[in-house]
Amino acid sequence: MAKKIRLGILGGGGDSLIGVLHRVASHINDNYQITGAVFNPDFEASMSFAKEIDIPLNRIYKDFDTLIEEEMKLPKDERIEVCSVLTPNFLHFPMAKKLLDNGFHVICEKPMTTTLEEAKILREAHKKAGTVFALTHTYTGYPMVRQMREMIKAGALGKIHKIDARYYQGWINTIIHDQEKRSSVWRLDPEKAGISSCMGDIGVHAFNMVEYTTGLKVKSLLCDFNYIYEDNKMDVDGTVLIRMGDHVKGVIRGSQVATGEENGLAIAIYGEKAAFRWEQERPNFLYMMSDTEPTKIYKPGHEYNSELSLDGTKLPPGHPEGIFDSMANIYLGAARAIRGEKYNDGEFPTMQDGVRGMNFIEATVASHKKGNVWVALE
Amino acid sequence: MAKKIRLGILGGGGDSLIGVLHRVASHINDNYQITGAVFNPDFEASMSFAKEIDIPLNRIYKDFDTLIEEEMKLPKDERIEVCSVLTPNFLHFPMAKKLLDNGFHVICEKPMTTTLEEAKILREAHKKAGTVFALTHTYTGYPMVRQMREMIKAGALGKIHKIDARYYQGWINTIIHDQEKRSSVWRLDPEKAGISSCMGDIGVHAFNMVEYTTGLKVKSLLCDFNYIYEDNKMDVDGTVLIRMGDHVKGVIRGSQVATGEENGLAIAIYGEKAAFRWEQERPNFLYMMSDTEPTKIYKPGHEYNSELSLDGTKLPPGHPEGIFDSMANIYLGAARAIRGEKYNDGEFPTMQDGVRGMNFIEATVASHKKGNVWVALE
Amino acid sequence: MAKKIRLGILGGGGDSLIGVLHRVASHINDNYQITGAVFNPDFEASMSFAKEIDIPLNRIYKDFDTLIEEEMKLPKDERIEVCSVLTPNFLHFPMAKKLLDNGFHVICEKPMTTTLEEAKILREAHKKAGTVFALTHTYTGYPMVRQMREMIKAGALGKIHKIDARYYQGWINTIIHDQEKRSSVWRLDPEKAGISSCMGDIGVHAFNMVEYTTGLKVKSLLCDFNYIYEDNKMDVDGTVLIRMGDHVKGVIRGSQVATGEENGLAIAIYGEKAAFRWEQERPNFLYMMSDTEPTKIYKPGHEYNSELSLDGTKLPPGHPEGIFDSMANIYLGAARAIRGEKYNDGEFPTMQDGVRGMNFIEATVASHKKGNVWVALE
Amino acid sequence: MAKKIRLGILGGGGDSLIGVLHRVASHINDNYQITGAVFNPDFEASMSFAKEIDIPLNRIYKDFDTLIEEEMKLPKDERIEVCSVLTPNFLHFPMAKKLLDNGFHVICEKPMTTTLEEAKILREAHKKAGTVFALTHTYTGYPMVRQMREMIKAGALGKIHKIDARYYQGWINTIIHDQEKRSSVWRLDPEKAGISSCMGDIGVHAFNMVEYTTGLKVKSLLCDFNYIYEDNKMDVDGTVLIRMGDHVKGVIRGSQVATGEENGLAIAIYGEKAAFRWEQERPNFLYMMSDTEPTKIYKPGHEYNSELSLDGTKLPPGHPEGIFDSMANIYLGAARAIRGEKYNDGEFPTMQDGVRGMNFIEATVASHKKGNVWVALE
Repeated sequence: MAKKIRLGILGGGGDSLIGVLHRVASHINDNYQITGAVFNPDFEASMSFAKEIDIPLNRIYKDFDTLIEEEMKLPKDERIEVCSVLTPNFLHFPMAKKLLDNGFHVICEKPMTTTLEEAKILREAHKKAGTVFALTHTYTGYPMVRQMREMIKAGALGKIHKIDARYYQGWINTIIHDQEKRSSVWRLDPEKAGISSCMGDIGVHAFNMVEYTTGLKVKSLLCDFNYIYEDNKMDVDGTVLIRMGDHVKGVIRGSQVATGEENGLAIAIYGEKAAFRWEQERPNFLYMMSDTEPTKIYKPGHEYNSELSLDGTKLPPGHPEGIFDSMANIYLGAARAIRGEKYNDGEFPTMQDGVRGMNFIEATVASHKKGNVWVALE
Repeated sequence: MAKKIRLGILGGGGDSLIGVLHRVASHINDNYQITGAVFNPDFEASMSFAKEIDIPLNRIYKDFDTLIEEEMKLPKDERIEVCSVLTPNFLHFPMAKKLLDNGFHVICEKPMTTTLEEAKILREAHKKAGTVFALTHTYTGYPMVRQMREMIKAGALGKIHKIDARYYQGWINTIIHDQEKRSSVWRLDPEKAGISSCMGDIGVHAFNMVEYTTGLKVKSLLCDFNYIYEDNKMDVDGTVLIRMGDHVKGVIRGSQVATGEENGLAIAIYGEKAAFRWEQERPNFLYMMSDTEPTKIYKPGHEYNSELSLDGTKLPPGHPEGIFDSMANIYLGAARAIRGEKYNDGEFPTMQDGVRGMNFIEATVASHKKGNVWVALE
Repeated sequence: MAKKIRLGILGGGGDSLIGVLHRVASHINDNYQITGAVFNPDFEASMSFAKEIDIPLNRIYKDFDTLIEEEMKLPKDERIEVCSVLTPNFLHFPMAKKLLDNGFHVICEKPMTTTLEEAKILREAHKKAGTVFALTHTYTGYPMVRQMREMIKAGALGKIHKIDARYYQGWINTIIHDQEKRSSVWRLDPEKAGISSCMGDIGVHAFNMVEYTTGLKVKSLLCDFNYIYEDNKMDVDGTVLIRMGDHVKGVIRGSQVATGEENGLAIAIYGEKAAFRWEQERPNFLYMMSDTEPTKIYKPGHEYNSELSLDGTKLPPGHPEGIFDSMANIYLGAARAIRGEKYNDGEFPTMQDGVRGMNFIEATVASHKKGNVWVALE
Repeated sequence: MAKKIRLGILGGGGDSLIGVLHRVASHINDNYQITGAVFNPDFEASMSFAKEIDIPLNRIYKDFDTLIEEEMKLPKDERIEVCSVLTPNFLHFPMAKKLLDNGFHVICEKPMTTTLEEAKILREAHKKAGTVFALTHTYTGYPMVRQMREMIKAGALGKIHKIDARYYQGWINTIIHDQEKRSSVWRLDPEKAGISSCMGDIGVHAFNMVEYTTGLKVKSLLCDFNYIYEDNKMDVDGTVLIRMGDHVKGVIRGSQVATGEENGLAIAIYGEKAAFRWEQERPNFLYMMSDTEPTKIYKPGHEYNSELSLDGTKLPPGHPEGIFDSMANIYLGAARAIRGEKYNDGEFPTMQDGVRGMNFIEATVASHKKGNVWVALE
């Protein structure tokens, strides 16, 4: 590694979920430094958020065009190198295009554009620019998803004949069943959200997962949507029959009204020799099934994993990736205490926990040594 | 929030697992800035690692004492505020003590010290210093662990009468069954590793989990270790009977030879009214059981969770915490591409994935609109 | 209860899986006595099987027509009352019809007939006969399937808007990928197996499960099959889009080439208020999900279950239904020993296990009483 | 097979759980015929139960001694061959002894006796008798438990160094927390229930499982009980440290106050090369773990299973054993209908379900053939 990459952020200010996600992810491998941003269309809000997360204020710009203009004036080795595009969907295309046209690298949230036509224009711009364009289909970053891809490439399943992918969520229920909400929320307004809600937002992740893991291309599809209410104009549920080749078929199921489902992305891939099953809510468990052998559970970080999978594992086996978040919570509590802010008992283990721990360890040794007798703790 | 906290790092350089974990965690909530460090006892290695992760070199010190000396010369608002102590166990005590004596906040890896006596001395130093001391019993940072604690405090289980905690790993098998390895590795040398291997390293986590979640104190214990081989001097397995009060009993089981187990920390807490079960390898699922009601599965980020639990959840329900790592992998691939380094196909989704996605979405809409007919993708 | 019902068996001799299943099931609630049979089209085989399972030989008939003829000569209170029809599919219709026409009750394996036309004729015959006709859609007998049905009827899910059912198996892979096998096996010969393999054999179970649990009727469907090979004439995989009403949609997925899947019948039912998920391979766990509450796991035999569900539970909570089979294995081993047949060590616990057990129990009491000391076993 | 074995039943009348279990199990493999019984100490109750389940009344005896006396008068080929002893614990010993002394085979519920001394006397009687004595440690009948035993015997785990077994239930909570109930129930009265409740009733199953699967013998143990209340005289919870040899250690955990647990028997066996995990509530899933290979899930009925395991599997893979019960429920509903008794809608699938099924199958074929169009159901 070397100097950190200068990263610009477009959108993702305030409580934005996608903002947190990209910011954290950019830190995790010590590669990026946030150098400039337009966090919010409202400049005040943008500046205030920059202060909150302690980003230098001199490169917080009033809008996207200004950012481009000002950054282009800087010498190349000071200029933002790459921008993360986290704005509402309809802005992905114009921003990404202008960034590419000006020689920036781009990290772009999905959907990449709102129409296929725009997507093709962007593809042309990208070819001309010659810079890096990364689309954040996040789920392809999971070690076990990568493991599937590599094992399939190496022939572990034999010829694939059936694929079943699903992305089920239930969160739109609270909106859809309320007439006022469903007619006012931007998510269900085709003007603002594009031509599809369920397929555009999550179905496309399942589709990407199918092509990413199998290396196969979907050649044609047949689709049926469900709108739930007559007056609702956006698909919130749908089933897509897919064909990847002669006698290679499958189904992609998407739903935002699958009550109680949270982030139910899952895929099953059936081949002549074996099959894979994987679920996003238990991302560390990859099941390989066969008609004649015991099912095998692959987990991250083992020597039996492919290089691509291991590259995506930051910790050795047995340390679930979620542990970063857990540790981060300890740091958060400590930060509050250090700053003299209010915090609750239980936010981080204290000195007293340390004393207790040593007391415990010494007592276990004493009990064992004395022939398994009871030993009191202080 | 405000200015980032100035963080010093002691140890944790190079490939250190614990180094990665603390570094990432310190970034996640935008609270800390690494300001100074002694990553390694070898100054060259320390400097070289600082370059690798792009930390300012002027505050990389040749050793711990120099760090203290030089930092104390700086004005308070430039000085390191808190140090993370990630060095080998026997150094935790002297470093933490000197840090406290000089008015620093401390974030310390466990075990806090190597003996109970040291622990008590440290407690005194901490009282005098009046600064923050956080011990990284990482697992208490999980949202559902916090949820257990808060619900128990609120009486959800009634009087607790039985606790069963476990921490099973298998990684030491490859060492213990090899006579040469087991007699040479520092982990199994009491001179270097302290009085206990299994209890000191992981049993104490289970112990901490018992006291953290229940609010009860272990009053006495009876312990039996297993050394597996006659010539091995350190416990690699043990069972501890515990008593928390009249007729409140339990068991803590620890093992480093539980073949095939990875990071098997788990706890079950049985009370008069209900019970909890939680496992670290599936940290988002908290089971609440009763003799008369259906078992309930609590998950992070829901409104039904306690404030302490929600505070530890950075994303809304349905976005597993591990997603940070997945997204980080996408950023890692992009960083390599941006820097012109070698990277593999599959490390991040590209422009072409974006075009395919839009093709898919438009095709689903077309198929549905035309009355569920087959539509070809390009 | 009273006298056992006189049961006739048609088909199901020798190693027939379906024969074992019906025979065992008929015994379980002490209601039936096998009184007559045509186990096999070959009379010798039929007699020999009757001897093997110790059924009186005088009412083993040479064919179905003879059975009817001879039984009709007997006085009503000696005559077979009900016949289980376990013959190949194409015989279900003629046998069931003749049985009904002669006033017998019928228990019939599915598919009931080979065409809808036959099914309607049978319906007429049944109306005229006024006897009982039971079709063995076995899976509706599970306590938790019944629980779903009753809770849905009581409004637990609110209005249902989405249903997703699946029945995935992989067993036909070993046949389908072998050209000789796939062109010779009767299962894949439309002349012998009827118009559908995958949908006729298992898809129809998923369909029945949809209508049984929800009380809704499928109004129309759209289907796509997969034959895997050009020269294969029977569907071995298929996806069916279904519509149950305005904006009430769903999907039924069936496969016999889902590699590694065994008996993967599963259903998810999503309603306005809550949802159910159930899988046949873990039949005792019924998941009830909601967007706002913790997921609940219902299990059999609890007071919170419906009457219909409890009626199908023979044991109190905590005794899984599969325990019958486990106990039966002990009885099987003992039977072999009693008959002086060869049996293996481990087939049933012996006297020595009993002595060991008492030794263990007494030792635990002694150890505890003496203050938790070690006690040797003999 | 040949003639059915003549089986006598002692106890187990009325609603007795253990009575149902033994009766059903005796039927499952077509080996036994119930020939005589003393279902109940009250002769009227015994006769009435015999009528209810349609057992010949002429060999229902007024008490156990009469049964022995009268059966001994019968010629050997008519006499009861084996008796199932299902009476309260304290009667197991005298009944089993008298049966053995008179040359009967015995199938005996556990605990075999109430003291180790009795157990040894019985062992002597058994040696003299030379008949079969089977103790119903039911759980050893599970196919995957047998699979563990055979694979361990074949060396799959290498040298075993650690065993962890558990049997947790919660049902006694409703009794123990009620002062009146806990002082009146016979289960908690040492006079009636013997020296141990938790260990005697369920701990001994876990103990048996340890010795059955591993082939190792527990050499010594150290135990701690929990009585929960000062005035309670019987253990309802306990932890037992066990030693099977030099450096081969383990723990057996038993509880009847593990709130919300139902029938939580489980075992984990850790060896030098690999480990097994199995749980009774999901008996078809046997996990084999290793430090270096993916975890494998063994399931019943596959060719990869041992002979002993396959012998205990009545159906091919993919048909869970619990399916017998499910099918039995269908037969139960049909029996009620046949007898003209009251039954509920949903107890068994009817003619109408058959017509619907054929309608579905034909519609799927039609839809597919016409090019995936919508087809209405009638």
